[in-house]
Amino acid sequence: MSIQIPRGTQDILPGTVEKWQYIEEKAKEICTNYQYKEIRTPVFESSELFTRGVGDTTDIVQKEMYIFEDRGGRNLALRPEGTASVVRSFVENKMFGNPNQPTKLFYSGPMFRYERPQAGRYRQFVQFGVEALGSEDPAIDAEVISLAMAIYQKIGLKNLKLVINSLGDSQSRLAHREALINHFKPSIGEFCSDCQSRLEKNPLRILDCKKDRDHELMGTAPSILDFLNEESKVYFDKVQTYLSSMNIEFEVDPTLVRGLDYYNHTAFEIMSNAEGFGAITTLCGGGRYNGLVEMIGGPSTPGIGFALSIERLIAALDAEKVDLPINEQIDCYLVSLGEEAKDYTVKLLHELRDNGFSAERDYQDRKIKAQFKAADRHKAKFVAVLGEDELKANKINVKDMTTGEQEEISLDQFISHFQQKLR
Amino acid sequence: MSIQIPRGTQDILPGTVEKWQYIEEKAKEICTNYQYKEIRTPVFESSELFTRGVGDTTDIVQKEMYIFEDRGGRNLALRPEGTASVVRSFVENKMFGNPNQPTKLFYSGPMFRYERPQAGRYRQFVQFGVEALGSEDPAIDAEVISLAMAIYQKIGLKNLKLVINSLGDSQSRLAHREALINHFKPSIGEFCSDCQSRLEKNPLRILDCKKDRDHELMGTAPSILDFLNEESKVYFDKVQTYLSSMNIEFEVDPTLVRGLDYYNHTAFEIMSNAEGFGAITTLCGGGRYNGLVEMIGGPSTPGIGFALSIERLIAALDAEKVDLPINEQIDCYLVSLGEEAKDYTVKLLHELRDNGFSAERDYQDRKIKAQFKAADRHKAKFVAVLGEDELKANKINVKDMTTGEQEEISLDQFISHFQQKLR
Repeated sequence: MSIQIPRGTQDILPGTVEKWQYIEEKAKEICTNYQYKEIRTPVFESSELFTRGVGDTTDIVQKEMYIFEDRGGRNLALRPEGTASVVRSFVENKMFGNPNQPTKLFYSGPMFRYERPQAGRYRQFVQFGVEALGSEDPAIDAEVISLAMAIYQKIGLKNLKLVINSLGDSQSRLAHREALINHFKPSIGEFCSDCQSRLEKNPLRILDCKKDRDHELMGTAPSILDFLNEESKVYFDKVQTYLSSMNIEFEVDPTLVRGLDYYNHTAFEIMSNAEGFGAITTLCGGGRYNGLVEMIGGPSTPGIGFALSIERLIAALDAEKVDLPINEQIDCYLVSLGEEAKDYTVKLLHELRDNGFSAERDYQDRKIKAQFKAADRHKAKFVAVLGEDELKANKINVKDMTTGEQEEISLDQFISHFQQKLR
Repeated sequence: MSIQIPRGTQDILPGTVEKWQYIEEKAKEICTNYQYKEIRTPVFESSELFTRGVGDTTDIVQKEMYIFEDRGGRNLALRPEGTASVVRSFVENKMFGNPNQPTKLFYSGPMFRYERPQAGRYRQFVQFGVEALGSEDPAIDAEVISLAMAIYQKIGLKNLKLVINSLGDSQSRLAHREALINHFKPSIGEFCSDCQSRLEKNPLRILDCKKDRDHELMGTAPSILDFLNEESKVYFDKVQTYLSSMNIEFEVDPTLVRGLDYYNHTAFEIMSNAEGFGAITTLCGGGRYNGLVEMIGGPSTPGIGFALSIERLIAALDAEKVDLPINEQIDCYLVSLGEEAKDYTVKLLHELRDNGFSAERDYQDRKIKAQFKAADRHKAKFVAVLGEDELKANKINVKDMTTGEQEEISLDQFISHFQQKLR
């Protein structure tokens, strides 16, 4: 009996993987231009890292995390997101002491959440994200947002919507919190039990509730923007000014919030407006988290970052029917006739590849007609044909599949022929 | 309190990660030339896949595998190696039905084994590997070996040793097995208990025993090469002829064996001869496994592949002191003086990056001298200085750090200046 892939996971196969490669390369190139450097952290961490860094009351930690014990009895978890690990590494490796600050990092890799699988949602999925740790300059907020936008735009997406908000500093948040409690308290009995328990613990998260989103008090809830103190207002204004100076369009949405205490100031999301993209339109979410580094045991350090799902990015590309510039052609397919000629192609094939050309030959004992068909399937730019007669004459026949032109060239000139034609 | 990285795992940080990126890019490029396509499988699989595909009597499965249950009670394991997953995917996705055969795949990703951590050995490590499924042409064996060699050589390693052997087909293996049992049986009492139990189950693995390697019967054990039948001999000769025609040097070592039943014919290892490389000198191991696909539930399909550890490859590069061509320079660092000028750099910085240049500015409110120092640390090719006066005059000062040449240029010409200088 055959064994199946675990439920909720997927194989990424040739034919699709090229999209992933293209996106990752492009994102890496953009990160280099923005001077974000890659960091790779382990796939699993102490469970405690996520109960602290993601929050022990969140669904992610309570219901969705893959938790296990290793053979030494350590309590480990497959990472459900990337930020906590990056911050753990930042603290453990004392990166705050490096001369180049802020510390600008990006990561890309599998994350794990035990959720109900559905279209576009997997239990193992790939997140790409960046974190800038160590600066409170609003220009870095604008930079992080512009980097996220650049990734989508440079890959070819057009129907994008950037939404930003400010959660203010802790003073502003506290004032807003009071106002929210006062707003919801008289009618909290009409809300779901989750919202009832959120009222005192974290009233901001009521605004996120899917069950109660149509309750009339939702639309009239006090806006965080009315509670920003002067400093927070100036900060948010600066972020907006910088975005405008980069010609990045955005909307301010005061209902865009983050529930956890260590989030403050800038929050943002990028959504797809593409027709037929489906229900989940958020491509990317990010924001400032000045309290997180301390929470994970490091010195007080401001931070901002975002994470985006590669799966959703690909879904958006598909919805917009973006053609990625993926090269599927090979430089040369070697067709041979007869045992000796076939053996000789081993050498020729190796020389082509050794000189940086992509090349292929037959390994299935195919007849010559089937070899030509294989050359077609490989979209070969050139097809080289070697028969016993040619081999004896120390020659090979090379056909340019674009022009149809055929040349008989000396075997000694084989590689230099390709160097002339393809370089 | 701060949280630490799990024992036996490592963070790969900026400064080191560039090596990984370079190696992966190079390996991917070589795989493209050889027409191996990437496949990505999940980090975890059904435990059963590995008990079948790796072998339930192996140390890997018995002692080293990370096994856990998901929230749905599924028995999962973090993959300890890559081949079983690739074969699972080959079968599940019916890749044997694709027109292009053999199916040539490569993978690169984290693997997990709960071993005693030591220098260069991690519980999460990265393996790069290839599999060619569907051909029994000895030329594909030679291709797979040459691909492995090409990766090491193109990355810059020089002190390499390729060792090959043949395990023959099942008839040859059976004859050799008999001979081994007859050879060891009379004195098996002098061997370790593991070897005693291996005698009937798998006498080939006695040759691999570290405890008994100095026993005099080891050196005189019958060689598999003396038991190859005609077909196996011809096969092995062909592989060697092909390697020679590609100018690849090798040694035949009849003691190079693989314990599991589904291995046959070609086996190979690549070792580092670099001075000071340490005790573990094997960089890469591979071989033919014509029985594996069937074992995992697919149709009988020949296969051959190899796996190499990126950690060991890097250790070998370090031992040989190979300098990888890693670019650490940025195109432009923007220095500014005064609030307005600083704000304006947000726009300039964005334009540079948007046009494909790598660029940076200060986000720490540094004085001008410290900004110049930061430009040095970033190895900037150009430093652009914007003060209040320049901004009013719509100009900016650009210094070429290679030549020392300074130019005052119009802000409107800023990007085109870089396009001229750097393209």
